[in-house]
Amino acid sequence: MNRALPVEPLADPVPTASSFAAVFARLKPHMAALDAFLREQVAAFEPEIREMADYCIDTSGKRIRPALVFLSGWQGEGEVPAELVRAAAVVELVHLATLVHDDIMDEAELRRSRETAARKFGPVTAVLLGDALFAQALSLAAQFPTTEVCAHVSESTRRVCAGEIVQTMRRRSARISREDYWRIIDLKTAELFRVSCFLGARLSGAPAAHVQASAEFGRHLGIAYQIYDDLVDFFGDESRIGKTLGTDFASGKLTLPLLVLIESLAADERAALLAEINGQRPVQMARRLEQMQELRVFEKVAAEVQAEIEAAERALAPWPQAAATPLLGGLCGVLRAQVAGLRHS
Amino acid sequence: MNRALPVEPLADPVPTASSFAAVFARLKPHMAALDAFLREQVAAFEPEIREMADYCIDTSGKRIRPALVFLSGWQGEGEVPAELVRAAAVVELVHLATLVHDDIMDEAELRRSRETAARKFGPVTAVLLGDALFAQALSLAAQFPTTEVCAHVSESTRRVCAGEIVQTMRRRSARISREDYWRIIDLKTAELFRVSCFLGARLSGAPAAHVQASAEFGRHLGIAYQIYDDLVDFFGDESRIGKTLGTDFASGKLTLPLLVLIESLAADERAALLAEINGQRPVQMARRLEQMQELRVFEKVAAEVQAEIEAAERALAPWPQAAATPLLGGLCGVLRAQVAGLRHS
Repeated sequence: MNRALPVEPLADPVPTASSFAAVFARLKPHMAALDAFLREQVAAFEPEIREMADYCIDTSGKRIRPALVFLSGWQGEGEVPAELVRAAAVVELVHLATLVHDDIMDEAELRRSRETAARKFGPVTAVLLGDALFAQALSLAAQFPTTEVCAHVSESTRRVCAGEIVQTMRRRSARISREDYWRIIDLKTAELFRVSCFLGARLSGAPAAHVQASAEFGRHLGIAYQIYDDLVDFFGDESRIGKTLGTDFASGKLTLPLLVLIESLAADERAALLAEINGQRPVQMARRLEQMQELRVFEKVAAEVQAEIEAAERALAPWPQAAATPLLGGLCGVLRAQVAGLRHS
Repeated sequence: MNRALPVEPLADPVPTASSFAAVFARLKPHMAALDAFLREQVAAFEPEIREMADYCIDTSGKRIRPALVFLSGWQGEGEVPAELVRAAAVVELVHLATLVHDDIMDEAELRRSRETAARKFGPVTAVLLGDALFAQALSLAAQFPTTEVCAHVSESTRRVCAGEIVQTMRRRSARISREDYWRIIDLKTAELFRVSCFLGARLSGAPAAHVQASAEFGRHLGIAYQIYDDLVDFFGDESRIGKTLGTDFASGKLTLPLLVLIESLAADERAALLAEINGQRPVQMARRLEQMQELRVFEKVAAEVQAEIEAAERALAPWPQAAATPLLGGLCGVLRAQVAGLRHS
């Protein structure tokens, strides 16, 4: 292992929030370049829709996918390669487009403390605006010298949509296996994480096997991240995450914490919970949280996050000397810290 | 002019329906290849959404955009170049995606006598399914040797969406100028016609100036086609077009026939009509049709279609020897015949 860098994920299973800051501090020039680049993209939209596009391309997001592009394509402190900025913009625009469409479907009113596009411009315009963001992402992807970025990003986009379709069809269904759950989050979330890490490594000229490993890392990190996000819906701090707990549960979305609870409950209680999921009975959030506590659901789900993070780290283990490896490992540390933070919140 | 081919658009200003058959008969092997190719594309979708994708890629459409690709890239009777089939599939998939999204917004129940995707799978799934069709179109576009097709198709897609956004924002607004109308239909309809003719000519190896002319032809034909389509909403034969007349009018869409009527009416009647468009008064379809008859609105709008068809023909005039020229001219004849058919229906 390359020990020259301060981030040592394997040696530090529960890092503090400072590791988050350490990883993201290094990306400051990259994120500044990305923001400037995204702002420039607004000019590519037709004048009539420029203001709306500008509203959607807000710069307050977490920018996780761009961070993955930059870290997996890391070429040294302060180096901000133009092709990484463009690739980061492509994946972020695809992500923003999916958010615009998600918010229509969820009838969400706020996203990052601002009105959603669906709320501000109406659902009809939001459908079209999301489409225009997708189109602009692919238009940017077509600015690379070969069709490779277009090919990968369009395939990924289709897979993300497929995952969301499956999730939508399974709403209020209690017949979801762990395999179904993994398949859905692999498509809807891990796919864009995967392609971000693929593109970063590929565009920085890494050898094919390393590019493959980087993609595999992204995929497992994406799965881990989504499971963490599903944990937040039950164990998060409402004031910090800015939304009511249990919204997934109330909307009939069967996520891993509920799956584990179902597996752990006795038959009669299980039947009652299934009726809450499929909408036949009102959701009893407090009671279910108590049962989760009692049956150690948090610990069981956190162990799954941990297993996926370890799978991600294993993918990169053969490349300890690569500049990207300790940085991506640092991200794993950040996610571990966030899971640990939930437990103690 | 090359007179070797039987279709002579300029010599036959009002051709009969037989010219339609003549043009499309030549495209039989192309359309068969396209249908087979589109069916194969279904396999590219994730297994969970394959059946839905198959439903959307129905083969009953008019296939106007693929016809433009094939005709503008014409290389001789019976020749079906694989790259034209792929390009035709790309533009048709983009078109099908826009239809899936349009039908959500219009709350349409039927499309080509079948339930719309929005009706069959629900609006949420239809949003995502349209996205997946867009993504698959771009994935196909990325199979060309260079990024050119991706670049043009993604730009066109963004422009189509922009046009539809502008149209949506202007619904129920009576303050639309002829310039606004032309701008909207240029984006929402003519753009895909344009890129279809561009790609056909480009992929068949035409010289740059001819490719440009072909694109210009497509653009004017697309504008002409949309104006014709807007005429149909007032002067079509309900039993033949399979929908109620005046649906655009009733939904507050200000199209050219209404614009011309507004221009021709006296002040008090004009105010009444504007109130019908902006939804303050119920639509008086019979009365407005009578006024259109009286004030020769059909003739005035048909003259605009004619002017755009002539502009299309002029674009190709410098290339009389090109194999595509008489065929595309034949399409102009078809459109002229359709407009004439409306008047006599």
